[in-house]
Amino acid sequence: MSRHALDVALELEALGEGRFGGRTTPEYWNMGGPFGGVTAALLLRAVLAHPARRGRPVAQTVNFCAAIGEGGFVIEVRLARDGRSTQHWQVEMSQEGRGTVTTGSVVTGAERQTWAHASAAPPPADDPSSVPAMPTAGRNAWLSQYEFRVMEGRSTFDLEPPGEIAPARSKLWVRDKPERALDYEALAGLADTFIVRILLVRGYFIPVATVSLTTYFLAGEADLARQGARPLLAVADARAFRGGFADQSGELWADDGTLLAVSHQVTWYRE
Amino acid sequence: MSRHALDVALELEALGEGRFGGRTTPEYWNMGGPFGGVTAALLLRAVLAHPARRGRPVAQTVNFCAAIGEGGFVIEVRLARDGRSTQHWQVEMSQEGRGTVTTGSVVTGAERQTWAHASAAPPPADDPSSVPAMPTAGRNAWLSQYEFRVMEGRSTFDLEPPGEIAPARSKLWVRDKPERALDYEALAGLADTFIVRILLVRGYFIPVATVSLTTYFLAGEADLARQGARPLLAVADARAFRGGFADQSGELWADDGTLLAVSHQVTWYRE
Repeated sequence: MSRHALDVALELEALGEGRFGGRTTPEYWNMGGPFGGVTAALLLRAVLAHPARRGRPVAQTVNFCAAIGEGGFVIEVRLARDGRSTQHWQVEMSQEGRGTVTTGSVVTGAERQTWAHASAAPPPADDPSSVPAMPTAGRNAWLSQYEFRVMEGRSTFDLEPPGEIAPARSKLWVRDKPERALDYEALAGLADTFIVRILLVRGYFIPVATVSLTTYFLAGEADLARQGARPLLAVADARAFRGGFADQSGELWADDGTLLAVSHQVTWYRE
Repeated sequence: MSRHALDVALELEALGEGRFGGRTTPEYWNMGGPFGGVTAALLLRAVLAHPARRGRPVAQTVNFCAAIGEGGFVIEVRLARDGRSTQHWQVEMSQEGRGTVTTGSVVTGAERQTWAHASAAPPPADDPSSVPAMPTAGRNAWLSQYEFRVMEGRSTFDLEPPGEIAPARSKLWVRDKPERALDYEALAGLADTFIVRILLVRGYFIPVATVSLTTYFLAGEADLARQGARPLLAVADARAFRGGFADQSGELWADDGTLLAVSHQVTWYRE
């Protein structure tokens, strides 16, 4: 049985002293570099693989500083602060000849039983089996590593202007393809599968990039295990596009109505 | 004429090579350390004061690693990547005897005229003059450095359980007190004035802390100048409280309907 493309992409070699080596893989290639979600998952994997790490991921910020080239990279993980209830990690990815290409931080925290309350509810959704999967053939490779079942919002965009302005909001079922049991790395990747909103809003291709991505993990290990490989209910929206930058926020819900993660990003667009 | 407390709190001495020295001030004291918003503003001020800095703030993440003690601190700023359209900064605050107390990153970007679109609108709001200001006397000092005119949601919380569960959402007018013309540092501070939601939801005091705060600045310099010292329309909400952590998101709108900043955080609570 062949290994899942995500597991291949997340393979890291421990180089000692918080350094890890890895390689980009063609399956997750985007326009001019790897899909940002797999970079986020790699940085998280490096933190989780650090021998001093305790607890589960709580927050991750990834700053996409420069284009990542095809080939090898090194991830350096540093424990900036080892607290009683949280650990604060600094992470940096670099490539020979390119220098620092990604910076980031991860907070891990102990799993605890506490008072719990859901102040937000998942939106109503059709059964995933009744929603056709978006065709991804012939598109950037990473799109084919996910199954997108779009219920609301543009599911694709044309390559020629002019498009009609559409809402920034999407609602869809999403999961790894082929299906794969959910873990925090997969969740970190899924949190970046929300197409950069301006492409959906304008309906045609322009140069865009995620500048900075922040994901909060609200799921415990048991929540991930309960969800398994079934599709996540995802919603995403953006608030404003101005001066070459835009925000967007997304939510990833388990199919039992548990909020697993929220993810925010600021994106750059050229014109 | 005396200087504004925020300007006093943001005073930094350049120590060379990206290092800046400052001191906590009693006006912005919170429970067991300074108000997180003034820490965010200080980290931003240090980046903006760096001689190599170009462009305006686009994104800021602040990780509150450990309690900040009363007294002096050092902020170290490092340009991790100097790109064509963005600069990526790493920031760290430390105190003698306490080590690293705060880490963070800031992205700055050039001001540009581009296609613009508002996909979200501000909520309807009463005129600020018709909404009474929340009393802040006798509370943590930092609250008295802001004027809160709450239109929706709890404006305070009692000190004894049991409270009735309330919605996590707030809508209010907020500004520095005394009034002060808006700049990015003030905006970074205002972005953290959203009371940790669990206190409002549960209606009584429990130990809480912001773990990580991310703010996206959508305002250009002209937007800030146009707003001046008038109150900002603020909304905040949270989605889930579970396992000792909760998320929350806030929006800060100019009174002409321009979205100036969005801010997200993950908070820790004890039980």
